[in-house]
Order: sequence, then C-alpha cells, then structure tokens
Amino acid sequence: MKKVLLTGAGGNLGKALRKTLEGWAESIRLTDIVPITDVAAHEEFIQCDLGDYDAVYSLLTGCDAVIHLGGVSTENTFENILNGNIRGAYNLYEANRKQNKVRILFASSNHVVGFHERETLLDADCTMRPDSMYGVSKGFGELLARYYYDKYGIESALVRIGSCFEKPLNKRMLATWMSEADFTRMIHKIFAADRLGCPVIYGVSDNPAVWWDNRKASYIGWSPEDSSVVFEQEDYIVNEKVDPNDPAVRYQGGGFAAAGHFEDE
Amino acid sequence: MKKVLLTGAGGNLGKALRKTLEGWAESIRLTDIVPITDVAAHEEFIQCDLGDYDAVYSLLTGCDAVIHLGGVSTENTFENILNGNIRGAYNLYEANRKQNKVRILFASSNHVVGFHERETLLDADCTMRPDSMYGVSKGFGELLARYYYDKYGIESALVRIGSCFEKPLNKRMLATWMSEADFTRMIHKIFAADRLGCPVIYGVSDNPAVWWDNRKASYIGWSPEDSSVVFEQEDYIVNEKVDPNDPAVRYQGGGFAAAGHFEDE
Amino acid sequence: MKKVLLTGAGGNLGKALRKTLEGWAESIRLTDIVPITDVAAHEEFIQCDLGDYDAVYSLLTGCDAVIHLGGVSTENTFENILNGNIRGAYNLYEANRKQNKVRILFASSNHVVGFHERETLLDADCTMRPDSMYGVSKGFGELLARYYYDKYGIESALVRIGSCFEKPLNKRMLATWMSEADFTRMIHKIFAADRLGCPVIYGVSDNPAVWWDNRKASYIGWSPEDSSVVFEQEDYIVNEKVDPNDPAVRYQGGGFAAAGHFEDE
Amino acid sequence: MKKVLLTGAGGNLGKALRKTLEGWAESIRLTDIVPITDVAAHEEFIQCDLGDYDAVYSLLTGCDAVIHLGGVSTENTFENILNGNIRGAYNLYEANRKQNKVRILFASSNHVVGFHERETLLDADCTMRPDSMYGVSKGFGELLARYYYDKYGIESALVRIGSCFEKPLNKRMLATWMSEADFTRMIHKIFAADRLGCPVIYGVSDNPAVWWDNRKASYIGWSPEDSSVVFEQEDYIVNEKVDPNDPAVRYQGGGFAAAGHFEDE
Amino acid sequence: MKKVLLTGAGGNLGKALRKTLEGWAESIRLTDIVPITDVAAHEEFIQCDLGDYDAVYSLLTGCDAVIHLGGVSTENTFENILNGNIRGAYNLYEANRKQNKVRILFASSNHVVGFHERETLLDADCTMRPDSMYGVSKGFGELLARYYYDKYGIESALVRIGSCFEKPLNKRMLATWMSEADFTRMIHKIFAADRLGCPVIYGVSDNPAVWWDNRKASYIGWSPEDSSVVFEQEDYIVNEKVDPNDPAVRYQGGGFAAAGHFEDE
Amino acid sequence: MKKVLLTGAGGNLGKALRKTLEGWAESIRLTDIVPITDVAAHEEFIQCDLGDYDAVYSLLTGCDAVIHLGGVSTENTFENILNGNIRGAYNLYEANRKQNKVRILFASSNHVVGFHERETLLDADCTMRPDSMYGVSKGFGELLARYYYDKYGIESALVRIGSCFEKPLNKRMLATWMSEADFTRMIHKIFAADRLGCPVIYGVSDNPAVWWDNRKASYIGWSPEDSSVVFEQEDYIVNEKVDPNDPAVRYQGGGFAAAGHFEDE
Repeated sequence: MKKVLLTGAGGNLGKALRKTLEGWAESIRLTDIVPITDVAAHEEFIQCDLGDYDAVYSLLTGCDAVIHLGGVSTENTFENILNGNIRGAYNLYEANRKQNKVRILFASSNHVVGFHERETLLDADCTMRPDSMYGVSKGFGELLARYYYDKYGIESALVRIGSCFEKPLNKRMLATWMSEADFTRMIHKIFAADRLGCPVIYGVSDNPAVWWDNRKASYIGWSPEDSSVVFEQEDYIVNEKVDPNDPAVRYQGGGFAAAGHFEDE
Repeated sequence: MKKVLLTGAGGNLGKALRKTLEGWAESIRLTDIVPITDVAAHEEFIQCDLGDYDAVYSLLTGCDAVIHLGGVSTENTFENILNGNIRGAYNLYEANRKQNKVRILFASSNHVVGFHERETLLDADCTMRPDSMYGVSKGFGELLARYYYDKYGIESALVRIGSCFEKPLNKRMLATWMSEADFTRMIHKIFAADRLGCPVIYGVSDNPAVWWDNRKASYIGWSPEDSSVVFEQEDYIVNEKVDPNDPAVRYQGGGFAAAGHFEDE
Repeated sequence: MKKVLLTGAGGNLGKALRKTLEGWAESIRLTDIVPITDVAAHEEFIQCDLGDYDAVYSLLTGCDAVIHLGGVSTENTFENILNGNIRGAYNLYEANRKQNKVRILFASSNHVVGFHERETLLDADCTMRPDSMYGVSKGFGELLARYYYDKYGIESALVRIGSCFEKPLNKRMLATWMSEADFTRMIHKIFAADRLGCPVIYGVSDNPAVWWDNRKASYIGWSPEDSSVVFEQEDYIVNEKVDPNDPAVRYQGGGFAAAGHFEDE
Repeated sequence: MKKVLLTGAGGNLGKALRKTLEGWAESIRLTDIVPITDVAAHEEFIQCDLGDYDAVYSLLTGCDAVIHLGGVSTENTFENILNGNIRGAYNLYEANRKQNKVRILFASSNHVVGFHERETLLDADCTMRPDSMYGVSKGFGELLARYYYDKYGIESALVRIGSCFEKPLNKRMLATWMSEADFTRMIHKIFAADRLGCPVIYGVSDNPAVWWDNRKASYIGWSPEDSSVVFEQEDYIVNEKVDPNDPAVRYQGGGFAAAGHFEDE
Repeated sequence: MKKVLLTGAGGNLGKALRKTLEGWAESIRLTDIVPITDVAAHEEFIQCDLGDYDAVYSLLTGCDAVIHLGGVSTENTFENILNGNIRGAYNLYEANRKQNKVRILFASSNHVVGFHERETLLDADCTMRPDSMYGVSKGFGELLARYYYDKYGIESALVRIGSCFEKPLNKRMLATWMSEADFTRMIHKIFAADRLGCPVIYGVSDNPAVWWDNRKASYIGWSPEDSSVVFEQEDYIVNEKVDPNDPAVRYQGGGFAAAGHFEDE
Repeated sequence: MKKVLLTGAGGNLGKALRKTLEGWAESIRLTDIVPITDVAAHEEFIQCDLGDYDAVYSLLTGCDAVIHLGGVSTENTFENILNGNIRGAYNLYEANRKQNKVRILFASSNHVVGFHERETLLDADCTMRPDSMYGVSKGFGELLARYYYDKYGIESALVRIGSCFEKPLNKRMLATWMSEADFTRMIHKIFAADRLGCPVIYGVSDNPAVWWDNRKASYIGWSPEDSSVVFEQEDYIVNEKVDPNDPAVRYQGGGFAAAGHFEDE
C-alpha cells in the first residue's frame, strides 16, 4: 500500500483507524467535511464535501486503495443523506472508474438488514430490509458497488459494520460489537486478498451471541479474534433492563428500527 | 377504487394503461413532467416534477391508490436519475406516509437483476445485481418501499417489469415480454388483494422461455394469460442474429448489461 | 379396493365422500360417534368412539384401506381433542399395525401450519406452526403417521385439507378451497399409487391465489382440476370487507389464528 | 431468578441440575410424581402428577421460570405417555397462560428426529421424524409450545437433549453427549436472553462427531465448552462392537429407532 | 441447420428421430456401429466405432450440430461401456474441440440419478446417484461435457432421457415416458436457443406423476405437450402388479436399480 | 486394522503416508506401477498396473481396508487417465465387491470442482465442475464409488484433496493446503467410524481462507488441527505476484483451470 484514501476520517471510526492503520500504508490521505488539524507525518488531509464530484475526483488521484467511511453515519434528514451517501457514493465510484479502478472498502451497515428479527441468522445473501433512511442509503451504496463490479470489474468489500466502538455500549452491542483491532485485521485481509470480488462481510467480533454468518466471505481469510464476552459482567450491561417485545429488542436494527421518521422526531 | 394516481402517465406504458384501466377506477389522476392534453372525462391531469416534494404531496391528496411509473425509465445521466427516481421515489413514499398510506404499485425493472446470467432462474429473493445506474435507482426504490412497509405498514407491489410493449421487439423480449393486458390484470389483482404486503413480482407474460419465477408472489392470485409464442415466427424475430457469447445475450439485462456508462456513450 | 373404512362418515366431508366414492370401492364401512341411518347397499355402518381401542381394532378388521376423517374437526375442548384426535389416531394406527398394515389417508389440516403468514409459500417440509389446539392435535397425528411409516412401513397420505365445501364460504376460502371432486380424484390417486410413502399433500384446488406448493408430492400424480375462480364474483364474496392487518387475514389459519383459547370464549 | 420450577426433579437429570443450579435462583421448587426427601434450604418440594391440571396450576403459582423435565423420559406404554407427556405438557402451558406467562425450558429429545440417518446433519428446521411413541409425544410438546408462543407470546426453548449423563455410556453417545456443565450454562443463557422467542436447540457438547447444527439458535449466545473426546479411549468405548448396517447405528435415534413397539417387547 | 450428425442412428431412438427430424435439417449424417441400409435422400450414412478417434474426427467434419445417442444404451459389460460411452464420448468432444466447437445434444439418462427414491423430486443440481455402470458412464459424459463447456465454451444440452418409446411399456413409464414428438420439439428448442450453456434437462413428457423438475432449464423455452395419461387405462398397465417395497419400485431407476452386476447375471 | 492396501505408494503422498501411518495398521501392502525398494518390516510391496483386473484382484486379497491414491495424479494423456483412473478405479471396486467389500478411502481431488470460482463456498453437494481431464476422471471415480455404495453397500470416503505437501508451495495453497498430519488423522477417523456411508470430504487444513465447507461430513468426527497461517509470511509467498483476473486466480482449480488441453501443450 502506497497511498490509501480514508474518507470520513474525522468521525469516531475514522479516528480509531488512523491509529490502528499507522504503519500499514506508506501514507494515508485523510478527508472529511470538517477540518482535521492533528495530521501526522505519514498523513495528509484534504477537506472535501463528498457531494462535489470534482473534489472527489481529486481525492482519488494517486491513491491505490480506498476505505470509505464518509457520508452520514446515522439517521439524518433526507437531504443530508442524499448528498453524503447517495451522491457521495456515486461520485466516489465514478471518479474511481475514470482513474485507476482501485479496490474499495465500502463501510455499509447492519442497518441495511435491521428489520430482520434477532431470531433470524443472516448471511451475505439475505434480503435487504433497511431500518432507516440511513439504511436505505447504505443499501443503495451496496447496489452501486455491485454494479461497478459487474460492469467495470472494480472490487469492493461491502462491510456491514455492527457497532465498532472501544467497547459495547449496551446489551444489544454484546451481539453487534466489532473491536477496532478486528476491523483493522479485516482491512489488512481485504486489501491483501489475491482476489476480492464484491463480497458482503458482516463487521462483527467473535461474540457469544451470533446474528450474522460470514461463511460466504470465508475465502477472504478473515476471522475475528476479539469477543464481547469480557464486557458481559460490566455493571451498565447487567443493570440494563430490556423487554423482549420492544421493537428495539425484536429487530436487529435496535433503536433504528424502533425510531420514527427523523424529521418527525 | 375511487381515485387512482398514475405517475409517468405520458410515457408509453402510461399511455397504454390509460386505455386498459378505463372503467376500473372512478377517476384517474394523471401526472407527468411533460404536458398531457388528451384528458378524458374520467381523468384529470396535474403536471409535476417528482423531485418537488410539495407538488408530489398535492398529487397524492385524495387518492386511494398509486401506480407509480414516473421518473426516468431507461439509462440516463446521474442527475436525471437522482431527481426522478431517487428523490422522486422518496417524495412519493414520504408524502404518502404523511397522508393516507395508500397502496402503491412501484414499477421496478428487470434491470435491477440484469447482471444475472440467462441460465439462472431468478425468484423474488435473488440478490439484486443492477445492470445500469437506472437499475441501481430502481433497486433504491425497492429498498425504500420495503422500509416504508416494515416501519409504517405501507403496502407496495414491487413489479420488476420485463418488456411491456404491444409486442416483443427482438428475440430477447420473447422471454421478457409482458402484454399490456397481463399487466392490467396484474394491477387489478394487486389492488384487490385482501392483503398485499410488499412482494416482488416479475412482470412477464406466460412465454415459452422463462427466466423468472413468481411462485413467492402466488398469494396475489395473478397468473399471466398471454404468451410471446405467437410472435416467434415473425420475420424480424427469425432473422435476428445473436451470438451466445455477446454480453447482451449472456446477461438477463440484455443491451443494458452490455452498454458502457451513459455519460461516455 | 374391496372394503374401505371411512371414519367421520357422519360429518359434512364424510357425507360428501359417501356420494363421490360410490362405485370406487366394492363396499365402504362407515363409522362415526353418532348414528348414521341412511346406509346404502354397498355400505355398512358401525358406530364407534375412536377413543376405544378394541372398537377401533374391530373397525379395521377386513378393510384394505382407510380414509380417516374422524375425530374433532374444529377447535374444541382439550378433553374432546385428546379423545378423538390423539387417542383416536393412536388407536387407529396401532390397530392397523396389529392387523394388515393397510394404506391410510390421514385427514390433517391447514391449521397445522396456520400461523404462517399469507405471504409465505409453504411446501411439505415447512415448519409446523399450528394455530389452535385442533391444529396441534393434527400435527400429532402427522408425527404419529410418520413414525408408523419409518418404523413399520405403514404408508399414509397426510392431507392438509384447506376448505372442502361445496363452494368457498368467504374470501379466504378463494385460496383454501378444495372441491369435493378434486378431493375424490386425489383419493383415487393415493390408493392407486404404486408407492405412496408418507407424503404431506395440501388439499386445495387449482385456485388463482396459491399459498401451498405440492411439488414434493407430485410423484403421486394428482393435480387439481377445479378452481375457485368461478366464485370470485359472487355477491357474498365481493361484499365481504377485510382488513389486511386483521390477524385472521395476516395468518393462513384465518379465524383459527385470530381466535382466543376455546375454553375462554 | 426468584423462584424456578423444576419438574421431573427426581429423575437423573433433575438430580444433576439440582446440584449445578444451586446459587443461580433464589429458590427452586422441585416437583415429581415420586417423593423427594433430601430437600435443601433453598428448595421446596411439591409432589404432583402432571396429568392433574389443578395440581399443575398450583405448582406454577409464584414461579418466574420453568425447567420442564417432567413426564416419561423414555419409551413407555401409550397410557403413561399420554398422561405424563401429552396431558402433562398441556396442563403446564395452559396453567402458565392463565397466570404469568413465564419463560419455559421444554426438555424435548433427539428422539423427535431419531429416524434421520447419521449422515444427515440436522438443524432446527429439519422435518421431525420421531423414532418412538416417546419421540412422538415430545414432538407434540414442541408443537404445543410453538402454538403458545405464536398465539400468546409465551417464550420457550425447545431443547432436543442428546444424552445428558456424567459421561457417554457407549460409542453413539460420543456424538450425542451433553455434559451437565454445558446444560447448566445453556440454562443460564436461555433465561438471561434479552429475547428468547421459541428456538429449537440441540442439547449436545462440543464433541468431535457432529450430527446437529445449532446455528439457527446462535442468537442465544450459548456454545458448549466440554467434549466427549476425553472419553474416546475408555475401554468400554474402544471395545464396543458396532455394525454399520444395524438400524441402531444407521439412525440417529440409536436403540430407540431399532426397537419394536413397547407393548410387544 | 445445414448438416446434423446423428450418432446411434441405428438404435430405436435413432430410428424414431430420423423420421421426426426430417425437414428440420438440410441433411443428416447418420452413424452407427452396425450398418444402416435404408438411407434417404437427405441422409448419408457412415459406419463408425465411436472408440476410434480418427473415425469420429471425420464424422464431425462439416457438421454444424450433433445429436449424440451413440454408445451402449443399457447395462452391459465394462469393456463395452468403456469403449462406447467413455472413450466414445471423449473422442466426440475432443474431435469437436479440434474442429468447429458445434453445439451437442448429449443423450444422458435418468439412470444417472436412478438411486434416488421416487418420493424425491429431482432437479438439475441434484446429486448424481447412478444405478448401473451404464449410469456411471453417462455421468462421466455429463462431467466431460461440462468440462468442455467451462474450459472451451462448447455448449451441450445434457438430456436425462426418461423412457422415449412410442408408448409407456409398464407402470413406471407412466412417470418416465417422453413422447417422440416431445423429444423432437425439445431438439428444435435446443438448437434454436440464443444461448444454450450446458443445462441438464430431464427428457420427460407432461405426465401426471412427476419425479423431475425442469425449472432450471426453463430458459430454453421447451415444455412438453404430450402426456402418458392416455395410456393409464390400457390393460397391460392396469393389470401390472407392483409391490411398493420392491427396489424396482422404490428407486427411480426401476429395474436398473434392482438388478445385480451385469457380468453376474 | 490388520492389513491395509495403499495404492500409489510410490508417489509423494504415498511416501508421506507410509511414514505417518506406521503403527496404525499391523501391516501395509504397498503397490505402485513403479518399483519400491525401501520396504519396511511391517510393509510388503506388490508392483501392479491398476489397469490389470486380475492383478488388482490379488492386491485386495486379505486386506481389510484400502487407501486408494493410485493412478494418474495430475493432468495427463487421455490414454493414461483411462488406464489408471477409470479402468483402475473400476478394477479396484469390482475386485472389492467380489471379495470382502472392505472400506475404501478414495483419493479424489479439488480438481473435480475446480471450475467453481473462489468466491463460491462449496460443500459436499455442490455440482461437480472438473477443471481437467484428470478432474473428470476423479469425478468418474466418485460416481463409481457412490454406485457401489448404493447398490452393494461398499462404504467409501471420497476425499477431495486440496494440496497435501509438507508446506504450501504458493499463495493459492494457503487456502488449499492440507498437512500430512491432518490427512493422517482423517484416515484414522474414516476407518474408525462406526458408520462411514459414502461422504464427500474436502481434504484441507484449518487455514485462514476457506473455500470448502465440510459440515455435511461432520458425523465422521474429523477436524483439521493444522493451519497454513504459519507460512503466510514466508518470502516466496509474500513476493508472489497475482492478478485477480487471471483464470488461475479466479477459479478454484488454479493452474489446472487456466491450462489448455494436455496434448496441445
């Protein structure tokens, strides 16, 4: 890896990856819609609105890999989602097609399938059932990536990230949590694979409770090594009360599935 | 049916349905981005850009059903697709949610799955593999409709239309053709169903060659009655030369799958 | 067929079959818990409580086939279901095992799978989800028959009857209706089959709306010939109001799925 | 857990659980058809015939969880099975519905699927093929539990126990053995789950040979930790002679599948 | 079709096709290991042992399609099968690869899957379970054809012929019978298809009892039009006695599955 | 194990097994078409061309197990494949049928399924898609073994060996590598199994990248213990350049899938 583009570098996940990916690529080009000031020696920063095609085109110039975390990362107004996640994803793939057709890690989300019930074990081919407009936009991104793969041979990993935080924030995340270290190892595997194709990969650690089955992406060679089991006895977990009939408990998307429309809330 | 909204009423399919649906609904509200002048007594026309939320909101007022053919119906620039098919679909579903939550027939397309090979029999749960940005946008529409169903209970039929013309225009359409009469009968069934849910239905007649399996939507009670067999011996069909290795023959999407990017062509 | 045992001969379905099966078997032994007085020349009647093993044993003596409609045929008290459907089914199979191991048509019911939603196409291997204690007891009967097949080689057809009446009584039955003639033809096929095994067969005519898929029993050679389509325009059908969110509409079992516990009603 | 009802507490499995569950629940109400005399301080004992509804109703009063091991636990006369396993299961679920609708662990059995061949890997949705009247009655219990879940929301775990003994007693049990410790950990998970639903779980340790696949219940978060591998070299195992064509070897149910009818033996 | 090669032209099926295909191709090159003397004007005959590569090479020269019925067509000695069906099939495909890579109809057989039970509905992807060395050799031919398709793009239809006779000869053939007219129509479709690929097609008419499901080949556009139903009441059918436990009745391959090894008989 | 026949004992894999199997069987009968001179005390050697039935018959006499590695083990001329792999396999199974019907480990190959793409996870029931005439001949052997199992009850393990070398020779083998120790443990399990049946088992260690799923053979009780992960950082691995679009990378068969016909090279 000579130069990797990291979009959404100013977000929480972006910040985490900047640390864990140090040393992996010779240089990392950071981008975000907000300024980043603590740029390290092996990094460069270019501020960019992903809705601006020409700016995105320039972002990609000279990069040989993309980790695309950018855009809106939770439920938001349709206009914001449209700009960041729909127009933004299109700009990224189209600019890549016009240049070097490099491999892309597309940060999708479990909210693409958040209206499946917990009792349903999902794999890469399950029907998409988004739980939010955010989830719909991530589903759009997956379809777009698949189209650019089928037609132009651009390889993407469609990573349906569970909950990538330092630790699980609540009981639901005991199932959905992915450690930053596991995500980092997955990134290594995705860009080192002899052949990537366009797989769906659920981004989740080796937790006790399992909702997602990654067997169809097992050719990538990634297996998580961390587990949420070490957090099970934390007080804030043990003391959390849940009702099995709450939609936030019934559906995999949790609070996203239970929430009303963003503009109404 | 008291009043049905027909979007895209000025297109070829819209024109055909205006004839075949006469007598089915008490009145039909036509809309299109271009003017329609031959408005019948049981019809009214409202010109509308589907990208304009307020206009779409007004369109829906007073309607108890929607047949949504509107938007871009073939490959086009991303901006046109974004406005007509992405923003337009959102506006329609959101305006419906704010008002009466009526049943919607969403005209999706076989181009949502156009990168599957002909040898693959598809059903309602197959992976979406769009063959064009048009196909990606129709996939977005399906995800959106599913989201509004799972969260708000709005029922939609996601009709992946094959080729709805007076007759098949080429050899490929011997497999993908849906007669206007079959589509009309399907519309009757969709709006009469005791319970619709949110099914994917392939819009295709009872042709000799079959690529699509509608068994999962068989609870709707629709079966096609026409067949392309009557056109098999037409000269323009018999004389068409095809190469089994042409991408337009290999993939279900035909020319859409074989074409390059719209802006480049 | 020399002598066929018909249990539940006094019920509506039993009465219908007495007419349609005339001429098929040389003689038919009728039985029911209530008296039957209009016994024809080719018939004999033996009154019997299926909960009485010795009586059931005698019923079977000399018969070379059984059509088992007997027992409780709708929701009822647990004690009645226990006697007629659980003890009764056991007595029948055990008495058969001790004697000639003849072929049995076991009248099961769609209520064995009545808690599946209408949108789910069921086949012979779907999970049983009974909608009533009646449905649970019919599921017991299916398991019992399967056990006697796997261990003792006794062949049974497990017919999950939809609604076998002269005509559909309501909108739901447009999907579940089986004509008496179709059932009669199915009976012919079941007892004429070179090899029956122990198949699940959904008892339903060739209606427009389809909830059940009989492909796994297609080796029997039965296909329905009648259709509920001829009743679609009857006034009592057209005028029936249904709500797609009513549990009786959502679940295949209809009113059985929507009802509370029998003893409470 | 304040108070847990443990039925069948006098059996071998009940005795084992009384030890391993000490400390998990504040108190355990033991019940069995035979007297239990060694009642500990955190225990209470109520003798009860599960066929007696009023007695079962009283058993449940004040309990917030049920572990239902009671009834006949091996092949037996139909009358005994009817009383303990059919009437008994109904009484338990119905008494629970009338009171607090608490969560139930229903001890089902591998004999519900014992007529599948060893070469067939089973999961939660495989067809039930009971190998005995005992197996049929456990299948009845599963259907009953599913009915009470679908209609009344009562959550149950349907645990198809393999062979829960201190150690495997023969070669077959190298595959079917579940350690008491693994069962205990499973119980913890079942009653701690945020949402249980109504899953089928095969009760088996992490043995070398695998007949059953628990992936569809992986959302519960239970994985076995013990293995029969430590017993593979025991003399009584090594010296046991088996014939691959013996029905007891061919079918998963082992001796249950090979045995004749109970009354005849 | 200019010139079609018909191997095995001297056999019963070859004789039938010579009649029904008249007029379809401009000329038909017949071949067989035995002489054919009644050569029509549009035919030519070349005697050939398929085990002779050079002779097979010459056979193919100038042909633009192959219907390969040749080789041993029933159980036989291993040496005969080796020469006619294994060496013969290799010679045909290899000679075709070296020349024009024309489309081939490979006459496979239901005996490739003859050890499946009747109760199992088979489709194109079922596991091959040959019932004879003849069946094994036909399985070899299917694998060979698939290899030549995957590596060299040579298209083949792998037709698992049931029983192609003037009429069914026994009860089993009521299920397996394919009329000569249906086979002829299938041949038309196979060679007219825009794209053939390498499908498995079961060669069977639209008979009442169905063992085989051709849905995965439905893109070819062939559907049978004849049915064995018209023979069901023939005396030799009605009077045939069958035992459901006879291996010839239990397994789809009939007598082939029940027979011992050829050399031993 | 008293006496085991090891065919192909002079090849690389045969040599490795001679070492690792020492002590497992009382004696090992080695055979190969080429001489073996270093015969140990517990071994005997019989030179044999597998194409010679009488010689093969003698080989089997007195053996109670067979490990069949013999025949051609890579792409070769059709004549060599025919003699060693087709005639040779037949001779082995037929000679076994005539004598003791002992259990056979048949060394099949991943090249039986080598035209599946890497992204496709294969299991025991996947369609065979051989990548070479060698692969076709191994597919023949699998069909033959299955036939002798279904008809004569001869049990075989069909081991689709990946790459069984001391260590992986290139990047592809990081996925396909099976350690000799893992193969040896698999052999122990196959011949110790209470019931073997006729399973397909992929011969592969517990490597990071997974193309093959052995769950359907999990009743055998074998799990690999070694992993190619220890070789990932070797220089010759790290420095190997691969192109994701190279057929040798796209297809599982690697170089076999990419190669032309053997005689042409």
